Amino acid sequence: VADASFFDSRWVKRPAHVSELAGGLPAGFRAANAHAAIKPDGAIDIGLLVCDAPEPVSAMRFTRSGVLAPPVLVTRDETIPNGLAAVIANSGNANAATGDGGMAVAREMQHAAAAALGIEPGRVAVASTGVIGVPLPTDGLEAGIAAAAAALDPDGDVALNEAILTTDAFAKRATLEVTLPSGTVRLSGQAKGAGMIEPAFATMLCFVQTDAALAPETAELLLGVCVKRSFDRISVDGQLSTNDTAILMCSGASGVTVAPESEDELRFGEALDALLRMLAILIVRDGEGARRIGRVVVRAGEAHVAERCARAIANSPLVKTALHGADPNWGRIAQAVGQALPGTAPLAVDIAIEGITLCAGGVAVAHDAVALQEAADGKEIEYEVRLGPAHPEGSEAEVIFSDLSHEYVTINAEYTT
Amino acid sequence: VADASFFDSRWVKRPAHVSELAGGLPAGFRAANAHAAIKPDGAIDIGLLVCDAPEPVSAMRFTRSGVLAPPVLVTRDETIPNGLAAVIANSGNANAATGDGGMAVAREMQHAAAAALGIEPGRVAVASTGVIGVPLPTDGLEAGIAAAAAALDPDGDVALNEAILTTDAFAKRATLEVTLPSGTVRLSGQAKGAGMIEPAFATMLCFVQTDAALAPETAELLLGVCVKRSFDRISVDGQLSTNDTAILMCSGASGVTVAPESEDELRFGEALDALLRMLAILIVRDGEGARRIGRVVVRAGEAHVAERCARAIANSPLVKTALHGADPNWGRIAQAVGQALPGTAPLAVDIAIEGITLCAGGVAVAHDAVALQEAADGKEIEYEVRLGPAHPEGSEAEVIFSDLSHEYVTINAEYTT
Repeated sequence: VADASFFDSRWVKRPAHVSELAGGLPAGFRAANAHAAIKPDGAIDIGLLVCDAPEPVSAMRFTRSGVLAPPVLVTRDETIPNGLAAVIANSGNANAATGDGGMAVAREMQHAAAAALGIEPGRVAVASTGVIGVPLPTDGLEAGIAAAAAALDPDGDVALNEAILTTDAFAKRATLEVTLPSGTVRLSGQAKGAGMIEPAFATMLCFVQTDAALAPETAELLLGVCVKRSFDRISVDGQLSTNDTAILMCSGASGVTVAPESEDELRFGEALDALLRMLAILIVRDGEGARRIGRVVVRAGEAHVAERCARAIANSPLVKTALHGADPNWGRIAQAVGQALPGTAPLAVDIAIEGITLCAGGVAVAHDAVALQEAADGKEIEYEVRLGPAHPEGSEAEVIFSDLSHEYVTINAEYTT
Repeated sequence: VADASFFDSRWVKRPAHVSELAGGLPAGFRAANAHAAIKPDGAIDIGLLVCDAPEPVSAMRFTRSGVLAPPVLVTRDETIPNGLAAVIANSGNANAATGDGGMAVAREMQHAAAAALGIEPGRVAVASTGVIGVPLPTDGLEAGIAAAAAALDPDGDVALNEAILTTDAFAKRATLEVTLPSGTVRLSGQAKGAGMIEPAFATMLCFVQTDAALAPETAELLLGVCVKRSFDRISVDGQLSTNDTAILMCSGASGVTVAPESEDELRFGEALDALLRMLAILIVRDGEGARRIGRVVVRAGEAHVAERCARAIANSPLVKTALHGADPNWGRIAQAVGQALPGTAPLAVDIAIEGITLCAGGVAVAHDAVALQEAADGKEIEYEVRLGPAHPEGSEAEVIFSDLSHEYVTINAEYTT
């Protein structure tokens, strides 16, 4: 048991009924990775996850992009969506913008995994991440999938996480023990993502497993709500990917049932929420080249106004470079708000950074510049924006975002990703 | 006469009836600059432009931001919009987010210039550029304006241009001689802008003068159309400013009248269009940290679809870093299109870079990689995107944009602007 390591952001509290384990998958799950000759350097590039329960329950969410990669299309359209028993995932190639050939490759991955596991292809989801527009090499695919199937292990969560990393600087995973009124269950999750991340679900790959028993409707509801509060609220570079996939799988092997509208559901939901929010924050913290991360909360009368302003601020390269340079430059925040709400001048905007009010009613206010400078030099910076009289308080929108650094430019200007 | 120096982009042709002069203002105009103690380093920070004609005609356009700076509000709401005789402009401070105090300062600038010139305050426009949210220092204002008024010169266009520069690396100005059927007129323009530039008019300061005689309606029409085709089509960092202002002033001193719906109007419009498009391209070329610039043209069935895709591509940090690194990474263009058009998959997208087709119907196509790499290494890179069957050809949207470089990060992370 290692409680301190995972929930280390001020923006996510570990619920009291949740404790952290060092690793391992919940009962009823096994995973492994292997080499499938997709990455040119011969690194680990394929991962396999299987749920051994007789009647697994699942839920999934995908990117909203208008350009969907074949693995997303196959998983969305050619599986039993609430009854997935396995995921075959690869890194090093997104199998995106690859047309009919890419569809055939995604199906080949699905069928090879199904054959290796002795299950129906419709029970296997496919997920890919990596370069766009290059055909996925298939020579090593079958052997790689067979090798992964032969290596499946109840402690395979670390291996699965390793298999999906691309530009990620560190792994993003946790195994939690969740105490519910009806008993104790386990919940684990593995995510990847560092670039091409925009707060418009789902902006990465994330696999979540539990040995609790959930009805399909409960799994759908909880994944949907928690994704909206986590992966839907983050931005690295404002760029929505073609491949993003989040899958929740429930084995029921703990014998503990999470019934609809029960105290168990509430508590389980809290744990899933904390897990996905922390994984989402880790993705931002690992944002390509990130040194600091910010959280902006916009309060306004209308939800869509708050949302538009929060995204405009989080995605402004001027705000992001200021965050990077520890420059509490609130003028750039005012500018982003003005851009998000054209034709509404004069706007009464209040802006605070780390609780220090810098602008009230659209006008600069005196403040302690030394205290502000110190506050702006942290690892996690909080921005609060309120739209005044014309927009009375009522709605709130949050986005957690990374800074824009030299390293981001280096990563994206010098390497094809 | 120096014809070669100004129109040096492949994307703007000098009309045959336009020739370039070394400098100078059209008849009826004078300008000058001075020190007004606004910039802390004591550099030139104030510029004054005056039209000496008895009945000057003018037109103006402003930023669409919801956060408008006091100089914009004063110029928009407290002048005779079609009868401006002067502009007082400063750099080093945007006088934005400065509230009632900022309004008083903008009026003080307007009234001081009017007094120095002996004209009504309502004939004087005010324009400011620089840091947001800091009160504009007023101690040196009156003396500075008086000094500029005393120095007014028919060749003051260079001085005026110098007075409005901030992070600009070079001046952006031209003086043109335009041969119309009814006679020869002069047309000059001075612009500034390097950051906080988004293709949603008007994204900088630009002052344009002519000695042609235009009716107010003609000046409005021509400035409106030409701004939409120039400053409305550029992006450095996708950030709409709080202060952007473009002003066209006509002295009529040439004695040549540009009548509505005449051949003169057509020819004059072509010259104004070329001038503003070239000034806009210079702003992109001088985009903070820019090494290369790109032009994306999106063709689609509906205008708003083409527009949304073109802006998404031009503002993508992934596309901009790839442009910087001479990486013809069309997968990032496909990704930006997918993000711009959520829920429309499968999208049949065609993508070409420098005329080399890389993606057809959403699928990668074979191409000469060496030729592509060479083409991607130029100073001006052209991207063409067509949305296929579901979006038959019909509309076209263009955006000219700069790359994203280490220098951009340095400028914006290390300096408060």
